[in-house]
Amino acid sequence: MASHAFDPTILPPAAPCPFCNIASAYASYDPSAPPAADSPVLDPENVSPLSFIVLSTPTLLAFLDILPLSRGHLLLCPRRHASKLTDVSASEAAELGAYLRILSKALVRTTGVADWNVVQNNGAAAAQVVDHVHYHLIPRPEIRASGKLRESFTMFGRGQREELDDDEAVELAARIRQNIQLVLDEEAGKGKL
Amino acid sequence: MASHAFDPTILPPAAPCPFCNIASAYASYDPSAPPAADSPVLDPENVSPLSFIVLSTPTLLAFLDILPLSRGHLLLCPRRHASKLTDVSASEAAELGAYLRILSKALVRTTGVADWNVVQNNGAAAAQVVDHVHYHLIPRPEIRASGKLRESFTMFGRGQREELDDDEAVELAARIRQNIQLVLDEEAGKGKL
Repeated sequence: MASHAFDPTILPPAAPCPFCNIASAYASYDPSAPPAADSPVLDPENVSPLSFIVLSTPTLLAFLDILPLSRGHLLLCPRRHASKLTDVSASEAAELGAYLRILSKALVRTTGVADWNVVQNNGAAAAQVVDHVHYHLIPRPEIRASGKLRESFTMFGRGQREELDDDEAVELAARIRQNIQLVLDEEAGKGKL
Repeated sequence: MASHAFDPTILPPAAPCPFCNIASAYASYDPSAPPAADSPVLDPENVSPLSFIVLSTPTLLAFLDILPLSRGHLLLCPRRHASKLTDVSASEAAELGAYLRILSKALVRTTGVADWNVVQNNGAAAAQVVDHVHYHLIPRPEIRASGKLRESFTMFGRGQREELDDDEAVELAARIRQNIQLVLDEEAGKGKL
């Protein structure tokens, strides 16, 4: 029975990084030719908690935030594990920057919301929760007329975030992937990408 | 006297964009060989309000926020006018992304503060104040131990921001430029940039 006794020297296994879990569950695909919405490649159940992928390249992943501040709240991260923005490579940093623009365009088209925040938190004092570097893209549907220089708003207010509805998320992610495809097609047509 | 009468059809001149003003007042320089701190190229009085430049390339500008949320609060923007992140070019977006990483490294070294936020606001509803796309880099010196999933913090709280002290700003900007130079030297040594 000794083998079942509590042994304080044995540590529990380290919690796996949730974004690395997502990265390992979703293969990359060409964002200008995304798989069909019902493809196993994009099945939300490939990982727990359910994940709703909008972008999966050899370098980057983007998916819906499971506790969105607003409809369309996205996360963009490198596939490779890195804690903070200072830990990514120069090319990952540039590619994150390039895709923030593409995702922003696709998100505005999908949601019809013209205003949004891009936020990237580094460390606990900066409200980073998942220790895998990521950018938030957060649509801001409330238009508050403001001529004021300084405006208060709560970034991560308790009670503001609601759990994602799974059926709506499947639909929303599909439309964002379609709009990413459209944006990339237009960029290619203009010779910009 | 008719010519001095109030004519409601004559609009006042459009306010010039403050970040375009800064762009036109500061020529670009090689960030891996910045000018001396007392060079006219970097004179804070080249424009009003005073500007404290930490980066000036043919494409990008970075300078101290004049109402910092914390010591070292920086702004990074494209030199060319664009309102929102969706209005920049693909190459500007990538270069912004690449320099967010470089500036983050230089800022952590300069301030000794390991945690920071990167924030980019698009539109009035998202608290964008200056209509020229820019990223904030905001050191977060308060370490608040947090095991909580959701944490409240005020992003742009009234009363949190203080005006920049000019003498301290000159010194701080010089040290950030030096650390950008060091970071770029190290990157070049590693063949990463």
